[in-house]
Amino acid sequence: MALITNAIKGTLDLLPAESYKTQYVEAAVREIAENFGFYEMRTPVFEHTELFQRSVGETTDVVQKEMYTFSDKGGRSITLRPEGTAGAARAFLENGLFNAPLPQKIYYLTSCYRYEKPQAGRLREFHQFGVEAFGAGAPAQDAEIIALAHTVFQYLGVKNLTLEINSIGCPECRQGFQKALKAYFEGYKDKLCDTCLSRLDRNPMRILDCKSPVCSQIAKGAPKILDYLCDDCRTHFDAVQSYLKSMQIDFTVNPEIVRGLDYYTRTVFEFVSNEIGAQGTVCGGGRYDGLLEELGGKPMPACGFGMGIERLLLLMEAQKTPFPEPKRCDIYLASMGENATRETARLAQELREEGIAAQFDTFGRSLKAQMKYADKLGAAYTVVLGDSELESGKAQLKNMADGTLSDIALDDFTGAFQSVLLRDALKGVEGADADLSETDLSQLLGGLK
Amino acid sequence: MALITNAIKGTLDLLPAESYKTQYVEAAVREIAENFGFYEMRTPVFEHTELFQRSVGETTDVVQKEMYTFSDKGGRSITLRPEGTAGAARAFLENGLFNAPLPQKIYYLTSCYRYEKPQAGRLREFHQFGVEAFGAGAPAQDAEIIALAHTVFQYLGVKNLTLEINSIGCPECRQGFQKALKAYFEGYKDKLCDTCLSRLDRNPMRILDCKSPVCSQIAKGAPKILDYLCDDCRTHFDAVQSYLKSMQIDFTVNPEIVRGLDYYTRTVFEFVSNEIGAQGTVCGGGRYDGLLEELGGKPMPACGFGMGIERLLLLMEAQKTPFPEPKRCDIYLASMGENATRETARLAQELREEGIAAQFDTFGRSLKAQMKYADKLGAAYTVVLGDSELESGKAQLKNMADGTLSDIALDDFTGAFQSVLLRDALKGVEGADADLSETDLSQLLGGLK
Repeated sequence: MALITNAIKGTLDLLPAESYKTQYVEAAVREIAENFGFYEMRTPVFEHTELFQRSVGETTDVVQKEMYTFSDKGGRSITLRPEGTAGAARAFLENGLFNAPLPQKIYYLTSCYRYEKPQAGRLREFHQFGVEAFGAGAPAQDAEIIALAHTVFQYLGVKNLTLEINSIGCPECRQGFQKALKAYFEGYKDKLCDTCLSRLDRNPMRILDCKSPVCSQIAKGAPKILDYLCDDCRTHFDAVQSYLKSMQIDFTVNPEIVRGLDYYTRTVFEFVSNEIGAQGTVCGGGRYDGLLEELGGKPMPACGFGMGIERLLLLMEAQKTPFPEPKRCDIYLASMGENATRETARLAQELREEGIAAQFDTFGRSLKAQMKYADKLGAAYTVVLGDSELESGKAQLKNMADGTLSDIALDDFTGAFQSVLLRDALKGVEGADADLSETDLSQLLGGLK
Repeated sequence: MALITNAIKGTLDLLPAESYKTQYVEAAVREIAENFGFYEMRTPVFEHTELFQRSVGETTDVVQKEMYTFSDKGGRSITLRPEGTAGAARAFLENGLFNAPLPQKIYYLTSCYRYEKPQAGRLREFHQFGVEAFGAGAPAQDAEIIALAHTVFQYLGVKNLTLEINSIGCPECRQGFQKALKAYFEGYKDKLCDTCLSRLDRNPMRILDCKSPVCSQIAKGAPKILDYLCDDCRTHFDAVQSYLKSMQIDFTVNPEIVRGLDYYTRTVFEFVSNEIGAQGTVCGGGRYDGLLEELGGKPMPACGFGMGIERLLLLMEAQKTPFPEPKRCDIYLASMGENATRETARLAQELREEGIAAQFDTFGRSLKAQMKYADKLGAAYTVVLGDSELESGKAQLKNMADGTLSDIALDDFTGAFQSVLLRDALKGVEGADADLSETDLSQLLGGLK
């Protein structure tokens, strides 16, 4: 078989047999985010290119080397989002959400695009869970978003992650720091890569996250931002730490974290694992108090993070974290002959309308092949319809777990099958059948939904 | 305020106050699809351009006029998917899913991109719920996917949709039809648009879905495919109709439906509304038995549909379909002073870890402003912590619905609050408190989860 085309390098398909894992992670992060008061926002996959140049920063690796930028049919330069914050900030401003009660806390589950060398944990199309809290400048907000990421990892059962935090100060304290950095790197002018040389004048802080081994070795000896923090930034950083302590969230201060995007101010943080190779940062974020003004809005503080879904799943697989098995097939309705198949179609439709996962033969298989297929689907119950069942108006329902058979009428099939499901669910609940009639239980379940 | 950039024309932001509606629709279609035995697949946003040229078809409007095609940094021609089937078919083949039990039934919730003139219900970035059943050629499969779409509309309470079906035959019966079409359109050569003129020799069927008013007027008098069906296609089409009848799904046969993509064969269908203006097709699909072979795979039948999420939401808004209100804030923890705020942070974290939607002040507001914010959030309960509460170790919990106050201890806050929630939930369940202790109920709920 010679396919005319394959998936593009650095992109992955999520297959039907595996997708329940991603669904599980996504449902978990959604629920946790909403419990933290963050609601979903979605922005388009592409934006005007200047949005990312201005927000992510002209001198970053992302903008200089990695963006998917092209012209649309109208001649506009558009770029597939390389990260989620810029689009969210643009949407916050454009839709006037600063007029709503602040903070406006949002989350997104989004795809991102970076033209990088593909490797484990680094894809050209990857997915992020991200949160942004617009409008809150208090250190409690930094701590809250860190606690949100922490809660996600805890809920999913991810282990051995280290939370590393740092402060990279505000423009005021960064002036002194940039000066010191420049003086330091001037001494290594002959060794720095070309990109870093060009950064020396414009933005020496970006040299600190160069991926070249030589530059990153030199960067290790560079001055540390924590020694240059102004009083306000120092107080803020101390308060973030005291909130994390009262929330019982362990962390270490790592003065080398600067994050690779220009918009960060004050708090930056990463959740790091050493179990998934070089791409160990599963979640990173921080405060970006200057971004909204940079994009043309009124000055307003904000902070957020991005969590890599593929890296998170890699880590969970590496740690053999259990994923709840999805419900597959409640009942398989097998048939012999066209009339019987049409009857199974009718019954399946009735069952499905009541939320029951029912399957019938859409392939035109023999009965034997149908039963084999039902087995592969993991059907909990099966029933076989042929001419004699159509005539008598009843069939035999088989519980595939214990092999028990029971008669079931075709004219009230769905109601009868629901009773069977309810009775079997009750078997697992100790003492329930002694005290409760079926009606009581249905009522109770209805009331608590 | 002058933003440096706005969203790109023809794209929309989904805002946090509105996103619960899309979430509700998505959760519904996911659950229904899975009950029908369709599992989620995701493919990348871009593919090699030739995939769409070959599958959607060189002579279609989509390929000729509407694709977002560009070169990546490696010089490949890549295209943002204009629809979902081609990528799903490519992934099915590339990942060898034809070796798994057939049919392989998949669904996706995906964004699509077409450079068209933006208008209500027609966006440049739009979203689709799509399903594909690979490997099943029996008419029951066509009926099953139609039933799936029908069930979605029924579940969501969408009204006044007409299901229109047609058969456009197989390559064999289409030969005679294309010949008749060509002869017919030859008579209008001086009136057809340039695009249609170029289609006259290569693919006259595509003239039938030209959007120009002149061409579509001429197309009305063209020969009808139903008069050219071969015996097999006729039998198949009859059987699809008899399945729909036994499933009690109303439909009309509309011989003018041809769908705008080249890959369709035999059954095509649309769910149409006249309540959302010109873009009335909310769901469209059909059978495409030739596509997998066209892409380089073994010959294998398949069918599927795409449902426009934005159009569906437009229609639901137009019909004032109710959306369930999302849960927002279970409890707001207000505070006076830094120590109290730190304590509310601790309590919020504890509550959230138990799945309770708790909020505290991350903004640095006065107590009065916090209570106003809690009100805007719709908090079900509030509590206020200050120095005296910290000292006494207890506070007053206020039920915001009825104003009742109750004491709550800070050292077992979460457990105590859970009991309050459970007791209040029980109030709504008739007769339950008479017979059931709290322990019984917790046990029962645990067992039935």
